[in-house]
Amino acid sequence: KETVCIFGTGDFARSLGHKMMQCGYSIVFGSRGAQTSSLIPEGATVLSHAEAAETSAVIILAVHRTHYSFLENLREVLRGKVLVDVSNNLKINQYPESNAEYLAQLLPGSKVVKAFNTVSAWALQSGALDASRQVFVCGDDSKSKEKVMEIVRSLGLTPLDKGSLLAATEIENYPLQLFPMWKYPIYLSLVLSAFIFFYCVVRDVVYTYAKKQVDRSFFIAISIPNRVCPAVALILLALVYLPGIFAAVLQLYRGTKYRRFPDWLDKWMLCRKQLGLVALAYAFLHVLYTLVIPIRGYVRWRWSSYVIAQVLNNKTEPLNNERAWMSDSYVSLGILGFFLFVLLGITSLPSVSNSVNWREFRFVQSYLGYLTLVLCTAHTLVYGGKRFLNADTYPWCLPSVYILSLIIPCIVLAMKFFLIFPCIDRPLTDIRQGWE
Amino acid sequence: KETVCIFGTGDFARSLGHKMMQCGYSIVFGSRGAQTSSLIPEGATVLSHAEAAETSAVIILAVHRTHYSFLENLREVLRGKVLVDVSNNLKINQYPESNAEYLAQLLPGSKVVKAFNTVSAWALQSGALDASRQVFVCGDDSKSKEKVMEIVRSLGLTPLDKGSLLAATEIENYPLQLFPMWKYPIYLSLVLSAFIFFYCVVRDVVYTYAKKQVDRSFFIAISIPNRVCPAVALILLALVYLPGIFAAVLQLYRGTKYRRFPDWLDKWMLCRKQLGLVALAYAFLHVLYTLVIPIRGYVRWRWSSYVIAQVLNNKTEPLNNERAWMSDSYVSLGILGFFLFVLLGITSLPSVSNSVNWREFRFVQSYLGYLTLVLCTAHTLVYGGKRFLNADTYPWCLPSVYILSLIIPCIVLAMKFFLIFPCIDRPLTDIRQGWE
Amino acid sequence: KETVCIFGTGDFARSLGHKMMQCGYSIVFGSRGAQTSSLIPEGATVLSHAEAAETSAVIILAVHRTHYSFLENLREVLRGKVLVDVSNNLKINQYPESNAEYLAQLLPGSKVVKAFNTVSAWALQSGALDASRQVFVCGDDSKSKEKVMEIVRSLGLTPLDKGSLLAATEIENYPLQLFPMWKYPIYLSLVLSAFIFFYCVVRDVVYTYAKKQVDRSFFIAISIPNRVCPAVALILLALVYLPGIFAAVLQLYRGTKYRRFPDWLDKWMLCRKQLGLVALAYAFLHVLYTLVIPIRGYVRWRWSSYVIAQVLNNKTEPLNNERAWMSDSYVSLGILGFFLFVLLGITSLPSVSNSVNWREFRFVQSYLGYLTLVLCTAHTLVYGGKRFLNADTYPWCLPSVYILSLIIPCIVLAMKFFLIFPCIDRPLTDIRQGWE
Ligand SMILES: Cc1cc2nc3c(=O)[nH]c(=O)nc-3n(C[C@H](O)[C@H](O)[C@H](O)COP(=O)(O)OP(=O)(O)OC[C@H]3O[C@@H](n4cnc5c(N)ncnc54)[C@H](O)[C@@H]3O)c2cc1C
Ligand SMILES: Cc1cc2nc3c(=O)[nH]c(=O)nc-3n(C[C@H](O)[C@H](O)[C@H](O)COP(=O)(O)OP(=O)(O)OC[C@H]3O[C@@H](n4cnc5c(N)ncnc54)[C@H](O)[C@@H]3O)c2cc1C
Ligand SMILES: Cc1cc2nc3c(=O)[nH]c(=O)nc-3n(C[C@H](O)[C@H](O)[C@H](O)COP(=O)(O)OP(=O)(O)OC[C@H]3O[C@@H](n4cnc5c(N)ncnc54)[C@H](O)[C@@H]3O)c2cc1C
Ligand SMILES: NC(=O)c1ccc[n+]([C@@H]2O[C@H](COP(=O)([O-])OP(=O)(O)OC[C@H]3O[C@@H](n4cnc5c(N)ncnc54)[C@H](OP(=O)(O)O)[C@@H]3O)[C@@H](O)[C@H]2O)c1
Ligand SMILES: NC(=O)c1ccc[n+]([C@@H]2O[C@H](COP(=O)([O-])OP(=O)(O)OC[C@H]3O[C@@H](n4cnc5c(N)ncnc54)[C@H](OP(=O)(O)O)[C@@H]3O)[C@@H](O)[C@H]2O)c1
Ligand SMILES: NC(=O)c1ccc[n+]([C@@H]2O[C@H](COP(=O)([O-])OP(=O)(O)OC[C@H]3O[C@@H](n4cnc5c(N)ncnc54)[C@H](OP(=O)(O)O)[C@@H]3O)[C@@H](O)[C@H]2O)c1
Ligand SMILES: CCCCCCCCCCCCCCCC(=O)OC[C@H](COP(=O)(O)O)OC(=O)CCCCCCCCCCCCCCC
Ligand SMILES: CCCCCCCCCCCCCCCC(=O)OC[C@H](COP(=O)(O)O)OC(=O)CCCCCCCCCCCCCCC
Ligand SMILES: CCCCCCCCCCCCCCCC(=O)OC[C@H](COP(=O)(O)O)OC(=O)CCCCCCCCCCCCCCC
Ligand code: HEM
Ligand code: HEM
Ligand code: HEM
Repeated sequence: KETVCIFGTGDFARSLGHKMMQCGYSIVFGSRGAQTSSLIPEGATVLSHAEAAETSAVIILAVHRTHYSFLENLREVLRGKVLVDVSNNLKINQYPESNAEYLAQLLPGSKVVKAFNTVSAWALQSGALDASRQVFVCGDDSKSKEKVMEIVRSLGLTPLDKGSLLAATEIENYPLQLFPMWKYPIYLSLVLSAFIFFYCVVRDVVYTYAKKQVDRSFFIAISIPNRVCPAVALILLALVYLPGIFAAVLQLYRGTKYRRFPDWLDKWMLCRKQLGLVALAYAFLHVLYTLVIPIRGYVRWRWSSYVIAQVLNNKTEPLNNERAWMSDSYVSLGILGFFLFVLLGITSLPSVSNSVNWREFRFVQSYLGYLTLVLCTAHTLVYGGKRFLNADTYPWCLPSVYILSLIIPCIVLAMKFFLIFPCIDRPLTDIRQGWE
Repeated sequence: KETVCIFGTGDFARSLGHKMMQCGYSIVFGSRGAQTSSLIPEGATVLSHAEAAETSAVIILAVHRTHYSFLENLREVLRGKVLVDVSNNLKINQYPESNAEYLAQLLPGSKVVKAFNTVSAWALQSGALDASRQVFVCGDDSKSKEKVMEIVRSLGLTPLDKGSLLAATEIENYPLQLFPMWKYPIYLSLVLSAFIFFYCVVRDVVYTYAKKQVDRSFFIAISIPNRVCPAVALILLALVYLPGIFAAVLQLYRGTKYRRFPDWLDKWMLCRKQLGLVALAYAFLHVLYTLVIPIRGYVRWRWSSYVIAQVLNNKTEPLNNERAWMSDSYVSLGILGFFLFVLLGITSLPSVSNSVNWREFRFVQSYLGYLTLVLCTAHTLVYGGKRFLNADTYPWCLPSVYILSLIIPCIVLAMKFFLIFPCIDRPLTDIRQGWE
Repeated sequence: KETVCIFGTGDFARSLGHKMMQCGYSIVFGSRGAQTSSLIPEGATVLSHAEAAETSAVIILAVHRTHYSFLENLREVLRGKVLVDVSNNLKINQYPESNAEYLAQLLPGSKVVKAFNTVSAWALQSGALDASRQVFVCGDDSKSKEKVMEIVRSLGLTPLDKGSLLAATEIENYPLQLFPMWKYPIYLSLVLSAFIFFYCVVRDVVYTYAKKQVDRSFFIAISIPNRVCPAVALILLALVYLPGIFAAVLQLYRGTKYRRFPDWLDKWMLCRKQLGLVALAYAFLHVLYTLVIPIRGYVRWRWSSYVIAQVLNNKTEPLNNERAWMSDSYVSLGILGFFLFVLLGITSLPSVSNSVNWREFRFVQSYLGYLTLVLCTAHTLVYGGKRFLNADTYPWCLPSVYILSLIIPCIVLAMKFFLIFPCIDRPLTDIRQGWE
């Protein structure tokens, strides 16, 4: 197989060299100090930069951007060669232009291709390539790009052509990100959780202690999380569908869809997926916390005291049919809601959402999504049942958490209800189709 | 970057133009009325069709098929140019030939490429590309196709080469489908559910009321769904494996596998995946409905009345070892069955099924699939236990639902049992390998 | 469309021919006995090998490797043609060189391309292509490869270019594998399960019977599996993170990361994903077995006897606050641990792990992974609670299973604790960055 030259003998250079030699390439390293060290993979040659460059048509530049200046002296040797830039930066948008574009400016005679920067040296060496399998490639010369993509493929990686060198900025920023789209949804959910948590501690633990001198601090382990999780889940779920309503109102008001939404709405629209998945995570926790209820020591104690009290008073409570209806139906609504919730989650998996068409995706996400919201809201409403009204049971005038959690969902559903009236829906549809 | 011309200034034309300008292309719109409106993305030029066509080698035709006739006058200008057809129809197979083929006949001198029709204008504009990321491309000239695929890539979308222009029909039908393969399985499951639901209402609610004047209407919320769901799940699961048995019998009878199966069998074989996933959904609901049993108000009431009755009668029931065995083992079988069921579901995810080979896929789907069926059937049989026999407890001679749900699974398992006898398996294997 | 020639009229030849004719190709079969049989798809021609070869530039060789010798006589006819090798072997690495390379040696004048071997004849015929959609292609001539990939695409399959003909060995071995990476993790888990199972049978069933003459054999159905599953899950989870610690210690000791790890460590590092997923499966079973506890006949009997005993003794146990805390908090820790466990599972799905970058993947797998281990260990420790100490309750001096299952996790966490001390972490980080 062909000879490939790698500039630099650092961590990445050696790992890549090692891997490429395993795949049948001959490797020549170009280094400042051209002596073979014990670290260099066996069988590779180390030469000076200029000598090394002459041995091959493809040169992989495994050197940090700050050192690129040494290449200026090699301009002639590198003319017409394919130069692969693998460099990463330490911060997002650290330099005004991307490293690859900088390199292309430095060496206008060479064909610069950006590649390999998303692959970690350690992954290459150890073979544990889980999140490093896709290699984004970009470059202005399509022949050179094809050559590099051939190398990528033969290493068992998947090249992904990203177009011209303009894409290099994006490619260089990619490995520095840590879930950028998830940041706001997760912050929001944490803030909400903390608030509701303290609210519940005051309401259920402090109040009980203050009023009745009963220590219920262990509620912190399960009972209170099982109020926090469903409430946050329901609020977040409503927040997924709220921006769509704002958008519709704005479009109706403006009479056109061709004016950009305000920035906050735009951002909100784009992180609905993440909001929804965080809501699903909270709902999942709610379900687990609910299903373990009968195993809890406290609950078992309460049930047995209840039975014993009945026996000692020598009376048996008859079945209250209405209560049985209420109890069964709110649980059933919760189950159906959760089922649809999981379905929404499954269709968000990249491989599933890529194998449905847009119509099918909207059917699941928009129609079934609203149905989920309706079911979950109904679940909470029926759970509340008659308790809503007798507000005198509110400790310190603090309403129950489920009442607070119902506010946004009810608003969303009410507004959506108006929006589907034909007299409002028709102009909206017209606007969205671009007829003005 | 290069200049691209777009014919039409409608919704799709503007959205695509806008997006392409963001990615560095210059855009020239070709329009009947060649004046710049406020809706046109800033920076784009609007010219007449002929003038616009001359500025670029690639022309994207964002006009409905019904208006294609105006292109006949431009035949000369468009000669040799790449013409991208993005059009969709309103109905599946609306015209005898696909829009792209029609265009190619209209303009034999141009190179027609079909692309972009699966992308929604709104998704392009808003950036929420979830189900619109794959762009199917087809065309007879591979250079033109490559050019279009380069544009697709630079917009951040994934081109998928579908071959020659013959594929255009399929590509144009794709965005009009709404889960075509899921239709029959879902109808079937709904019909089954409705039937079993009414059967249970009669058996458990109406009968109880008629005979004992006891109101058990709240069974509709959980108890009856928890009979319907497992029964439908079990029947559908058996229906997944039944067609394979029919196929085997037919092949044995005919002595060859080279005669086509009857149409209904063919269709049935092809929707087994969907049948299986619907069955999984029902099983999932069954599990949830089962796990909430101890939380239900009614159940807690029943348990406490039972305890109180024992106390008041001053007798303690000893542990019935056999009943404990039965109760524990049917639940355990259900858990194992559900676990394998979920495993089958996971291997159906497109990204998982694409990363296993055929042997592995068959191992999971066929072997573990039958094991799932065996476990689920055993679960139901053990649940039924001794109750099968004393038919005099059947209200109005209606057997329990689990008895009905066992019929098909037992038939499937019995027939499969015969098919794996060596004396039958050997000729079958021979037939399938094509030796006659 | 073009004419393609297929050598052989066997199972695969006919299925492929049939499918290709559906997609618009004309097919000419080359056969020893050049007569049309009824099995040949209608519309295809059957000729002698030499005649058939002349009709087309692409020849698909659907003949077993053992018969390749007949091609030597056709060397002249096949010169310059694209020869597609579809063959598979019966065993992994059956021959010293791959079939495709052997063919290339046999016919140096032809352009050999390996393809289609991962597709099953039956899948082609029936259209159920679930695990056969990816067609690995390799070959030394890139034009021929492109031609074959075009055919692959037009059949609705996805070609995957694997580089030069060197890759043929790997491609030929692929369809013969049956979960090679899962073998050790699954064996290990089975051995562990069997050991703990018998340990529990002795401890919980045999001992009870021997000492108290009480028959608890039904524990085998749920109680004992619910000891085995969590214990195995916890041990496997710890074994996922143990090799990373060994690696760190070894690197510290050696002072370099450029010496290869011993073979066993390398293998262990590479099957951590599978170990982790098997652990998840066991944890899932543990959760299901735990959630059904209140439905079990035995448990209901025990609870009611407990209540009845209290009543008959006329005393009501007060709520033990500490025990409520303990019971609630170990369950809560388990829930949180399981939640993160599921998250790790979701990020292992190929489509998800491909859409996160390396930094994100490490964040989830390494940080959240350790958090999972901490939570699960804490869950078990708190569950054990005070029972650890009074060893006199151990039947036959056999400690409880949870004590055994805690050994490895505690070792792993203790060692990790030392490794994150700055004075140890700093040199380790330096070593990993390659500075020596
Ligand atoms: C568990 C879970 C998972 C989720 N996963 C995803 C996911 O993977 N991807 C995702 O995007 N979302 C996801 N979501 C979020 C949500 O379900 C979707 O965004 C859903 O499409 C929102 O529906 P909608 O009807 O409110 O909004 P949309 O259908 O987006 O409509 C909102 C507004 O956009 C405008 N609009 C819509 N269509 C058009 C059009 N054709 N032309 C012009 N304007 C239009 C209108 O103004 C409309 O009011 C998820 C949610 C949950 C709970
Ligand atoms: C939860 C769940 C998920 C599922 N997901 C999927 C899925 O993703 N994809 C999917 O396809 N199915 C799926 N199924 C359906 C089912 O599991 C599979 O179709 C399974 O392969 C059927 O097994 P079988 O042994 O009955 O049939 P098969 O293995 O398909 O065999 C059926 C018949 O086909 C013929 N046949 C089989 N092999 C050959 C051969 N080599 N040559 C000639 N003839 C042959 C024989 O006549 C045989 O009797 C799913 C099922 C469930 C419950
Ligand atoms: C449910 C579940 C699913 C899982 N799925 C996966 C999966 O899909 N893919 C997968 O790989 N694992 C998976 N795992 C296993 C495990 O979570 C990961 O392997 C995880 O990364 C191990 O973390 P660690 O910190 O021990 O090891 P690592 O982060 O791999 O580090 C281990 C050792 O490698 C060396 N090392 C690490 N980074 C570097 C570096 N940059 N340079 C040099 N040396 C380095 C060090 O010696 C370090 O001690 C899964 C586990 C579970 C429980
Ligand atoms: N490590 C990774 O996981 C990873 C992953 C993706 C991309 N990358 C990129 O790969 C490149 C190299 O990274 P690395 O981790 O290998 O770095 P490194 O270990 O620090 O090695 C850098 C190499 O550059 C050479 N060099 C240093 N100063 C120089 C100078 N003034 N002039 C010329 N050459 C000089 C040295 O080689 P000689 O002594 O032989 O001259 C040195 O070995 C970086 O751009 C990085 O962003 C790394
Ligand atoms: N909208 C989508 O989401 C979407 C998605 C995929 C594909 N498509 C396809 O894109 C194409 C355009 O869709 P659209 O939604 O943009 O439709 P549209 O908004 O109705 O626009 C159609 C455009 O065609 C031009 N036109 C109309 N009549 C014409 C005539 N007689 N002669 C010449 N030009 C005429 C007009 O432009 P001028 O006034 O400037 O001449 C008009 O703006 C369709 O084929 C559609 O199937 C649309
Ligand atoms: N079946 C599958 O699912 C599958 C999947 C992937 C790959 N493959 C590969 O496809 C190839 C064919 O498999 P198959 O299942 O079709 O096998 P098959 O049914 O046994 O057919 C083999 C064909 O080879 C020809 N042949 C036999 N002996 C020959 C000889 N001495 N000289 C010349 N030709 C001879 C015969 O055709 P004539 O009588 O017409 O000469 C025969 O029909 C194998 O290499 C196999 O590994 C098969
Ligand atoms: C049980 C429900 C599962 C419980 C927990 C749900 C957790 C939801 C959070 C998922 C977080 C995924 C991190 C993805 C990282 C990332 O950025 O991933 C980025 C990718 C790709 O995003 P883009 O395509 O937008 O670039 O996004 C995803 O992959 C989303 C993954 C969605 C996962 C949904 C899983 C639902 C599965 C439900 C299974 C059934 C459960 C049954 C319950 C009994
Ligand atoms: C808990 C189990 C999950 C519960 C619900 C199962 C729902 C099953 C229904 C899935 C419907 C998916 C719609 C797909 C739309 C479509 O057409 O999708 C089309 C795609 C692609 O199909 P093709 O590859 O055939 O073209 O098909 C799929 O993607 C199938 C998705 C399978 C999903 C299986 C999910 C199982 C996950 C189990 C997780 C673990 C759960 C643990 C439980 C405690
Ligand atoms: C509930 C959790 C799910 C329960 C069971 C977990 C089972 C884990 C075992 C998965 C086995 C998959 C076989 C893959 C075959 C293979 O080789 O597959 C090979 C592929 C590809 O591997 P490579 O990328 O390494 O080549 O690997 C996989 O696809 C891994 C699949 C991971 C699946 C994780 C699923 C977790 C989903 C959790 C959903 C939420 C559940 C909510 C619970 C209430
Ligand atoms: C399997 C599905 C579900 C079941 C079995 C279930 C069950 C329950 C139960 C038993 C309660 C009462 C808890 C208590 O007494 O403290 C409850 C409360 C609640 N549930 Fe659910 N639920 C499910 C799904 C959901 C979903 C998907 C949501 C919405 C996202 C949700 C939202 C709520 C809310 C907001 C409350 C009130 C919390 C409070 O303030 O106490 N539930 N659920
Ligand atoms: C976690 C897994 C499972 C558990 C814990 C479980 C538990 C139960 C229980 C407790 C019952 C009795 C319900 C009642 O008394 O009304 C039951 C019934 C039944 N189960 Fe399951 N089950 C599981 C999985 C499955 C699966 C996967 C199937 C098959 C697809 C199945 C099919 C059935 C059937 C057909 C019945 C009889 C329904 C009736 O007529 O009452 N179960 N199961
Ligand atoms: C939803 C999550 C979970 C819940 C509700 C839960 C609940 C429980 C319960 C109730 C027990 C006591 C069982 C008994 O009394 O026999 C237990 C034991 C145990 N759990 Fe979990 N658990 C969960 C998740 C996990 C996870 C993820 C692991 C670790 C991988 C784990 C490991 C253990 C271990 C090792 C034991 C001791 C088993 C024994 O020897 O009895 N649990 N768990």
